[in-house]
Amino acid sequence: MTESWATFGADLHLDLSAGRGLRAGLVEALREAARSGRLAAGTRLPSSRSLAVDLGIARNTVAEAYAELVAEGWLTARQGSGTRVAERARPRRTAVPARVRRPARQGPSYSLRPGSPDVGAFPRAAWLSAARRALTDAPNEAFGYGIDGRGRPELREALTGYLARARGVYADPDRIVLCAGFAHALTLLARVLRARRVREVAVEGYGLDIHRNLLTAAGLRTPPLGVDGEGARTGELGAGPGAVLLTPAHQFPTGAALTPARRAAAVDWARTTGGLILEDDYDGEFRYDRQPVGALQGLDPDRVVYLGTASKSLAPGLRMGWMVAPPGLVDEVLAVKGMSDRTSSSLDQLTLAEFITSGAYDRHVRGMRLRYRRRRDELVAAVAGRVVGVSGIAAGLHAVLDLPAGTERAVLQSAAWQDLALEGLAGFRHPQASLPPRDALVVGYGTPSDSAWTPTLAALAAALP
Amino acid sequence: MTESWATFGADLHLDLSAGRGLRAGLVEALREAARSGRLAAGTRLPSSRSLAVDLGIARNTVAEAYAELVAEGWLTARQGSGTRVAERARPRRTAVPARVRRPARQGPSYSLRPGSPDVGAFPRAAWLSAARRALTDAPNEAFGYGIDGRGRPELREALTGYLARARGVYADPDRIVLCAGFAHALTLLARVLRARRVREVAVEGYGLDIHRNLLTAAGLRTPPLGVDGEGARTGELGAGPGAVLLTPAHQFPTGAALTPARRAAAVDWARTTGGLILEDDYDGEFRYDRQPVGALQGLDPDRVVYLGTASKSLAPGLRMGWMVAPPGLVDEVLAVKGMSDRTSSSLDQLTLAEFITSGAYDRHVRGMRLRYRRRRDELVAAVAGRVVGVSGIAAGLHAVLDLPAGTERAVLQSAAWQDLALEGLAGFRHPQASLPPRDALVVGYGTPSDSAWTPTLAALAAALP
Repeated sequence: MTESWATFGADLHLDLSAGRGLRAGLVEALREAARSGRLAAGTRLPSSRSLAVDLGIARNTVAEAYAELVAEGWLTARQGSGTRVAERARPRRTAVPARVRRPARQGPSYSLRPGSPDVGAFPRAAWLSAARRALTDAPNEAFGYGIDGRGRPELREALTGYLARARGVYADPDRIVLCAGFAHALTLLARVLRARRVREVAVEGYGLDIHRNLLTAAGLRTPPLGVDGEGARTGELGAGPGAVLLTPAHQFPTGAALTPARRAAAVDWARTTGGLILEDDYDGEFRYDRQPVGALQGLDPDRVVYLGTASKSLAPGLRMGWMVAPPGLVDEVLAVKGMSDRTSSSLDQLTLAEFITSGAYDRHVRGMRLRYRRRRDELVAAVAGRVVGVSGIAAGLHAVLDLPAGTERAVLQSAAWQDLALEGLAGFRHPQASLPPRDALVVGYGTPSDSAWTPTLAALAAALP
Repeated sequence: MTESWATFGADLHLDLSAGRGLRAGLVEALREAARSGRLAAGTRLPSSRSLAVDLGIARNTVAEAYAELVAEGWLTARQGSGTRVAERARPRRTAVPARVRRPARQGPSYSLRPGSPDVGAFPRAAWLSAARRALTDAPNEAFGYGIDGRGRPELREALTGYLARARGVYADPDRIVLCAGFAHALTLLARVLRARRVREVAVEGYGLDIHRNLLTAAGLRTPPLGVDGEGARTGELGAGPGAVLLTPAHQFPTGAALTPARRAAAVDWARTTGGLILEDDYDGEFRYDRQPVGALQGLDPDRVVYLGTASKSLAPGLRMGWMVAPPGLVDEVLAVKGMSDRTSSSLDQLTLAEFITSGAYDRHVRGMRLRYRRRRDELVAAVAGRVVGVSGIAAGLHAVLDLPAGTERAVLQSAAWQDLALEGLAGFRHPQASLPPRDALVVGYGTPSDSAWTPTLAALAAALP
């Protein structure tokens, strides 16, 4: 490659070798660009008139260069379609070792893995309408570097109203920090806790290893609490941990709602020790019975950090989450967040704000709640008499199916033969937890698309003993 | 607060005290929700019919409860507008200490700070069109948790073509990692370098302190290179640094283009020492003269990490950036990125892909280039004879105005009196750099909106000696 470059069209860089005729140099530069793949097959070139103006040379010179390359087969010229790089001028990309070319993961045909909503039900039209209104109304400064690390005030205001109304959260726009999902929020909080010299964050004996691993990676130990039909055994909290991570509304994955006594015990612990409660309200919107469960945060907004996302209610692909934190903690979170962590697009934040305030969020959640409840009922009917018990079904997007002792691994193997991705309860056990043995499946009935639901259910039924 | 909760409307949680009549309990719960602010003034309540169905009680019971609260002034009922929380039922938010209530930063009236494009020129309509097409065409899995830490393949494919064509980058979708802006990318690379046991990253003697601080925070020293009219003195690179951060197309902020000899020296250094070149191509799209400057990365794609963003070409608020890295480094970046760092929305990634492939990106850049060039010419005319010299104007969104020796601070003070935000060159000096003294202003002429441009220029003229 020569060291001199020429632009033309203003958005195309070419090597123009010095010391040659203009036409010859242009021909050579274009040929090399097409040969190397920098100009992809099918790329439309500027008209000879506009290129000539850009380069300050005669139009004929460009036209002659184009004609020569058409004659050589590098370019094609068609009436109405302009001059383009020929299809047979195949790009030669820089060689990339095979190990980096990962194939797209070919998953099983069916999936009942928990943790994902039905992404096929994303409300595309309603979201786009909200985006249109948000883009139209956005002040210019929304397109700039944000000056508030907490995120757009419009969304924090909308969430304040929504969380108070729907989840019983005592919120305030100043207390809300927007983030890119639960894992992002937990990472920020782990760094804050480490800065506070906390060494342990208690976790539930059943939970997600990726959350435990995030805490461990931040240098925090994760002693487990017992989990039973009343949720996490918060009475076990002692002087060691500086914080505890809980799923009060719907223990993940066993499905229990933390009882009032256990809630009180958690708050008492926090008040006595100065500890912090991290409340993961991952599917609080989806409650099917008439025994609703509000956020624990309402009990003591100065000891509880409430964590929510749009990942279950809308889609994980939005990467949109929020924390409601005590005021002092907000400052600490912003300090660790810093300049490099203005992660989510302000346009998305404005769109979600509009989506919530227009009522579209509530409508979507209500519609999905009906769909998920119907699926839950169909799941329960499909496995009736085939499993030892079904639990955790009063809320959320997953159920726990208890199996005869010692059969969990065999059922998972059988599911694999049915081309069905399925998770056993064992995969959610904390390695250090002392929990009674329990063979069970954690079935995410929210995951399949509507069209896949019936065959997925059939695959599950076929996998059961 | 009681420990029992009731939902109604399915998206509204209320305390229903046990052991009371249904109507009295409902009245008390609604009153408390309005009093505490959990139900904001103006919130529309469900119709008495639908609430009665949800709660499984008689419609009359709900209607009577509503009527009682209307009589008390907590609710209002108007034909056609339904029942709402009355305006005078003011929310009582949890008290937040004053120190957390930061006022919105009241900036000066005019700004010529460098680093931001004219955000008033964001192509709202074209972006929305692209979003509509992207949302319509998106596969369902785009709404799920991404399985590839590099980001959506559609955008990596679109960038491959664009960067090759417009910037001379040797790209490949497998080599591209999408991120949330330059600072995010630099943070990831700093962590990779630390994991490689690198201790020093050389930087340019003039540059942004926030970039140096990110490196320092990651545990890296930042020895400075000299900077002159040929760009950074890459010949000074020795055995110490494991990487160097450069702005080859348009040195920030002095504006020099790194000469071919200096480019060759950088690549030779990288080949000899195994070092890595981090190429910050922050405004490569905006070149006004006919001496275009391609990406350094084209010289040795296996030694250079190319870093770009949409922050100057579109808007910083999008939080959209990319790196083109050697294959092995991609794996290292993905390893440090991990699960907690799926930061940008896949819908935005698909929208930008559509924006690029449809040609809207090129059209926008071309249009902005004309506007910025006109502003640059007006700036040069406005300061002619008032400054010692103008440089760095062949490209980008800022110019360097040299001042008589010893006057920089006075001019900045004078600008403050004109209510004009302005930066001096001194603010960009590396504290350890040995650079000749130079009094100058770094004027970001891209920053003002079109309507603010003329008065901003007048404020600058008034501030000059």
